[in-house]
Amino acid sequence: MALSGNVINFLFGRPLASSEERGEHIGPLAGIPIFGLDALSSAAYGPEAALTLLIPLGLAGVRYIVPVSVAIIALLAIVYFSYRQTIEAYPHGGGSYTVATENLGDGAGLLAAAALMIDYILTAAVGISAGVGALISAVPALQPHTLELCLGVLVILTLVNMRGVHDTGLVFMIPTYLFTGTLLVVIAVGTFHALQGHPQAVTPLPHLPIASATLSIWLLLKVFSSGCTAMTGVEAVSNGVMAFRDPTRKNAKIALTIIIVLLTILLLGIALLCRAYGVGATDPNGAHYESVLSMLTRAVMGHGWFYYLTIGSVLLVLALSANTAFADFPRLTRAIALNNYLPHVFLLRGRRLLYSWGIYVLVALTALLLIIFRGVTDRLIPLYAVGAFLAFTLSQAGMVMHWKRQGGAPLRMFVNGLGAFATGITVLVVLVAKFVQGAWVTALLVAGMIVVMHTVKRHYTRVNRDTALDRPILPAEVVEPIVILPVDRWSRITEKALSFALSMSNDIRCLHVQVSEEEDDICKVWEEKVAEPLRAAGKCVPKLEILQSPFRYVLQPVVDYVLAVEQQSDIRKICVLVPELVVLHWWENLLHNRRADLLKVILLLRGNRRIIVINIPWYLERD
Amino acid sequence: MALSGNVINFLFGRPLASSEERGEHIGPLAGIPIFGLDALSSAAYGPEAALTLLIPLGLAGVRYIVPVSVAIIALLAIVYFSYRQTIEAYPHGGGSYTVATENLGDGAGLLAAAALMIDYILTAAVGISAGVGALISAVPALQPHTLELCLGVLVILTLVNMRGVHDTGLVFMIPTYLFTGTLLVVIAVGTFHALQGHPQAVTPLPHLPIASATLSIWLLLKVFSSGCTAMTGVEAVSNGVMAFRDPTRKNAKIALTIIIVLLTILLLGIALLCRAYGVGATDPNGAHYESVLSMLTRAVMGHGWFYYLTIGSVLLVLALSANTAFADFPRLTRAIALNNYLPHVFLLRGRRLLYSWGIYVLVALTALLLIIFRGVTDRLIPLYAVGAFLAFTLSQAGMVMHWKRQGGAPLRMFVNGLGAFATGITVLVVLVAKFVQGAWVTALLVAGMIVVMHTVKRHYTRVNRDTALDRPILPAEVVEPIVILPVDRWSRITEKALSFALSMSNDIRCLHVQVSEEEDDICKVWEEKVAEPLRAAGKCVPKLEILQSPFRYVLQPVVDYVLAVEQQSDIRKICVLVPELVVLHWWENLLHNRRADLLKVILLLRGNRRIIVINIPWYLERD
Repeated sequence: MALSGNVINFLFGRPLASSEERGEHIGPLAGIPIFGLDALSSAAYGPEAALTLLIPLGLAGVRYIVPVSVAIIALLAIVYFSYRQTIEAYPHGGGSYTVATENLGDGAGLLAAAALMIDYILTAAVGISAGVGALISAVPALQPHTLELCLGVLVILTLVNMRGVHDTGLVFMIPTYLFTGTLLVVIAVGTFHALQGHPQAVTPLPHLPIASATLSIWLLLKVFSSGCTAMTGVEAVSNGVMAFRDPTRKNAKIALTIIIVLLTILLLGIALLCRAYGVGATDPNGAHYESVLSMLTRAVMGHGWFYYLTIGSVLLVLALSANTAFADFPRLTRAIALNNYLPHVFLLRGRRLLYSWGIYVLVALTALLLIIFRGVTDRLIPLYAVGAFLAFTLSQAGMVMHWKRQGGAPLRMFVNGLGAFATGITVLVVLVAKFVQGAWVTALLVAGMIVVMHTVKRHYTRVNRDTALDRPILPAEVVEPIVILPVDRWSRITEKALSFALSMSNDIRCLHVQVSEEEDDICKVWEEKVAEPLRAAGKCVPKLEILQSPFRYVLQPVVDYVLAVEQQSDIRKICVLVPELVVLHWWENLLHNRRADLLKVILLLRGNRRIIVINIPWYLERD
Repeated sequence: MALSGNVINFLFGRPLASSEERGEHIGPLAGIPIFGLDALSSAAYGPEAALTLLIPLGLAGVRYIVPVSVAIIALLAIVYFSYRQTIEAYPHGGGSYTVATENLGDGAGLLAAAALMIDYILTAAVGISAGVGALISAVPALQPHTLELCLGVLVILTLVNMRGVHDTGLVFMIPTYLFTGTLLVVIAVGTFHALQGHPQAVTPLPHLPIASATLSIWLLLKVFSSGCTAMTGVEAVSNGVMAFRDPTRKNAKIALTIIIVLLTILLLGIALLCRAYGVGATDPNGAHYESVLSMLTRAVMGHGWFYYLTIGSVLLVLALSANTAFADFPRLTRAIALNNYLPHVFLLRGRRLLYSWGIYVLVALTALLLIIFRGVTDRLIPLYAVGAFLAFTLSQAGMVMHWKRQGGAPLRMFVNGLGAFATGITVLVVLVAKFVQGAWVTALLVAGMIVVMHTVKRHYTRVNRDTALDRPILPAEVVEPIVILPVDRWSRITEKALSFALSMSNDIRCLHVQVSEEEDDICKVWEEKVAEPLRAAGKCVPKLEILQSPFRYVLQPVVDYVLAVEQQSDIRKICVLVPELVVLHWWENLLHNRRADLLKVILLLRGNRRIIVINIPWYLERD
């Protein structure tokens, strides 16, 4: 029962008491790897996604990456200020779901909830498969084991996360800071060279193609929205405020600030260096594909050990970015379950103070996605921007309402409104541009999940309505039950059940089902072993009823009898005692009929509130 | 529950009342197809098996088939008289198992039981695959569907048999009598020609090979024992005496006599015609393999429609010979279960008065064998003679003891003793000759099944010893129980359980597990809703105990409390009431914790005879 044992303690850590909760809380430095990994790792694919769309413009196209990045950073700044304010307003965790629900109503909240859940599952699956994919580019011999590697990473992430937030932060610190550190060095060195004049790449870069298209507003919008994938993961901190140690709001805001500043430097630095060194994207489906970060690092630092350190940390961080989903998904499902829109099992805190079921469900769905796509989930990347930006939009629209209700603060309303508008446009652009490629799946899933959540809510509402009781107990309704006891033959098992029946009531009906005419006469034995001694002791004597069963059914006559008694009787409860042999080994159950279990199930299915089945176990004694 | 429904009635027939039993019983003519199919179909492979071993002797070898067949028929006659006497002595079914158990003791009985069970399962699998194999020789296009065809035949046999013995007899009558009739015509016409001088084959026969070996006693023994496979299935009638209508013994003996007479004519006729027409076996692994019956029919009747009719009925009867296993296996397992050596489920009679579980187990094991061998089980044929002859030997040895105990009848003792000796020798020869080819598997299985049956017997003996009760009930031991009720919050569910608890006992302990310190105070609500009204009504007030749970386990504290109460208390029973919500749809169970179920399981596993768990169901009402 108590999942103890040394192995479990070793893998997952010892159980934590509720009073140890504060000790599991983290500071801002540990918070950055946990809640910022997803956001920071976006720098590895956001600019690349934008540059890929600019390939048809040739060298001229690379120039546009700077204004697009500046626009994205401006949007990021808006989102940053919005989320700072959200943390302030929602110290118990103010993800898009909470903010949208509280300010825009349940409908908007559920939309945000569905979008975010899908987003997190995709983040986990895509992060793991991107990391493993990059590893396989480096070591092609591992190709046949893609799925196994993905599931292996998933298992490691699960084990690390099952230990709790505190331990997770420590494990993820090194790769996160290595990733940020090496990229900052690349940017610093590159900027230094660029400031000294026209910089030259240390190792030769591929030539940019000749322009085959011209700029259009639609293209710029698509470039912008693709680049916006660099912003996914930004909302994680505001969702996980509770995980920070006191003063929680301040620590959360520090973590968010550091993450946004780092992300801004990375995005801006990458954009400027791309322009300075003339680095454009290569065709991702082409034979000579190389990632933008790889070319940039080569150009600035050469093809030495630092290059491998940088690229290695990129791969590691991409794989680990899945962890943000582990940190946030359980908190999100808890928040939804608190409003009765998801099963209450998501509210339970496990032995390490985590919302364990959120992790189980995330792991199961991620594993399912990985297995369905055999570990190659790159096609899912564009889809998950839909979820993230839908959530951004709703969250910021919610904040607008929040300020409005607080009465005024027009500047803040304007900032959030601008953010909502910009992210809303992005959602529309992504939806339209990617609808045929699969965004319709996301739309369908969101709709389906909203239906499920409504159904769950309806059930809980109904149960609460049906079971709520405000009046006190009615002592007059406490009356002796009618007891029904099926009897096979006179044995210790029967004696135990009968003794118990006699202690419960004076109205006892013992039923004997007669299957064949060749049976021994139970009436004689009954008179001798039961009726006479009880009469002599001045106790009430239970009735023995013989039920005929021409078709040899044993349970049917008992069930019919019980239901008939229930029909005829007054307010009294009907207790059906079911004697049952408890064997010592599981296989011994094969040697006995399961009629007791069946009778319980049938009476549960066909019975009603007045019928109570009581199992009288009779244990075989150990030798 | 009552497996009704039109589809089920159509497939399996309407349910039969126990009083309709006599109507299901059969006369001797219907008994021949049911209990004789296996024996009669043996004529199709017994002589062939003997002739195959004589191939190395060339034309000279064919001569030996006549004396060998006469020897087999002599043995058959001995076995026949033995089983007539068995039917007389055991009118309720005297298979080898019963006879061996009653006369030689349980050890010999179990040996016979294990041998027979294996024999029947092999009969079913080999019969089906032999029939399908023959069909495939005729229509090679069906080859890829061997397994499907085998399983299809198995399903048809199962459906036919689930309708009961009466209907089965009617279905099998036509093929059985067609098979016997056509072969008798072949033998009659052939004998007529042979009596008129040196007969000539109507269509040319393959040439017999030149002799490459000489006769030896060992070879003759092997030929004899191979030919003895013609005798498998003979014991079926004595096992199924009960299935015949009144007068059962007489009808059973008539059926047995007809079967043995027909089999004798077939075996003798085939042997004589083989010699007269010079028909020997062909190499079963050779390219030009043709069965002895096919050559014989061709030689006598030519290659016309009668040939196809005969061969067609041979194929059909081979496939249907599996049915003998269906008729006898359930009766055998019932007889073993009656002695507590197999689970009692084999004693139950289903809706059509059959021992349904015997059929289920037979079908399952046959399907397993067919699937393992992908429908080609010819290699198993030699193995199942071991089981059949072991059973013969034990049965006849048992009859010797029977006569001895009856005091005398030296002729009968001699006849049975001779039979036991001859069949015993056959068992030894088959075991030695086939040990490496797989008879060791049979030996191992027999040993394993004997161990299983002993274990089952030990369990039942123990249960009977532990639960048997001869003394009457002790009225003084009827005392009020201690009632323990876990309480979550004040609701209709709690009220119902508490009302019930109050009707049972004055010693009630309500338990509330406090998981977090932030909970509402239940003590105040309790005082107001429960304690005050009960006190006012002059009733006893249940105790409310608050259990702290620092690690958030909910069940552990309850279980610990219950076990502690059990330790401290006197002879009183401890009733744990477990309120449980019963939802309307299965999926709604996902929305509620399964703690009630878990608590029941834990208390059942860790509890003892004094702890009784009572489930208080609370039904959600339909709208």
